[in-house]
Amino acid sequence: MTERFKRRGDFIVFSAFSVLIIFTIVFAQEAAKVSYPTGYRDWAHVKSMLIFDQKHPLFNPFGGLHHIYVNGKGLNTYKEGGPFPDGSIIVFDLLEANLEQGAYLEGSQKFVGMMQKDSKKFKETGGWGFDAFEKDTKSSFVKDGGKSCFGCHAAQKDKDYVFSKYRP
Amino acid sequence: MTERFKRRGDFIVFSAFSVLIIFTIVFAQEAAKVSYPTGYRDWAHVKSMLIFDQKHPLFNPFGGLHHIYVNGKGLNTYKEGGPFPDGSIIVFDLLEANLEQGAYLEGSQKFVGMMQKDSKKFKETGGWGFDAFEKDTKSSFVKDGGKSCFGCHAAQKDKDYVFSKYRP
Repeated sequence: MTERFKRRGDFIVFSAFSVLIIFTIVFAQEAAKVSYPTGYRDWAHVKSMLIFDQKHPLFNPFGGLHHIYVNGKGLNTYKEGGPFPDGSIIVFDLLEANLEQGAYLEGSQKFVGMMQKDSKKFKETGGWGFDAFEKDTKSSFVKDGGKSCFGCHAAQKDKDYVFSKYRP
Repeated sequence: MTERFKRRGDFIVFSAFSVLIIFTIVFAQEAAKVSYPTGYRDWAHVKSMLIFDQKHPLFNPFGGLHHIYVNGKGLNTYKEGGPFPDGSIIVFDLLEANLEQGAYLEGSQKFVGMMQKDSKKFKETGGWGFDAFEKDTKSSFVKDGGKSCFGCHAAQKDKDYVFSKYRP
């Protein structure tokens, strides 16, 4: 093999390897995402909470009435305890809270947040994939792979990173 | 037949007839009741509302955070409209609302109300059986066969006597 061919061969190997690395990075980023939780309104309702005052530390961005829903895979863990199995999905559905005559009524949706358990895929964030979706377009708006979400949820490590509790 | 036997026969017929009437009345009263909606926490969640101020006309007895749930038979009517089919059950789960730091959190249960559709059995109250249950004992405390409940729900005749609306 001539020096020229050897260099050319090295270049091809190097290029192919580079493309492989780029593909791996792109694929890994895609894989870390979760999908919009279609059908969650038919799932079991875990609990609700109304944050109405700016003095509440979570008012921005969680001001309003939120409902927590869980899919069939995760429901039993809420009831019985223990770590959530892979496939569990928890939804945080945030609505405007409209004040009328001494009552708060459900208003329009603000956004949908969710956690999806996959202990291998999301091992860097406690086994949970986090994301949030715009109210109308349902497009994801969490840009850091859920690290900011996990920043708060990490405090709940002994409850498998979940804040909400189920009432019987 | 002597006069004495005739009178005795009349008395027996009269007695038997009286017992039949009493049994019919007792049975009809029993039949008009609905049973505690066991398992409703696994049903679909329709909507919620928080009544926190005494100035709200429904504060007594509905002050607190309430959730509306519907069983599988009734869910589609909430989504698509039309009259609810027999067997539909709608639950009104009323909880204390605890004020903390600019937010209302779910407190202990106050009581559970429910409507059960049976267009033949409950035709005097719009085809719905109404009842409400104590939080701990789960014993019924509606004593008028649901007529007082129906008094308010009658205004919703064009919506099959149901107040709550489903958000998609």
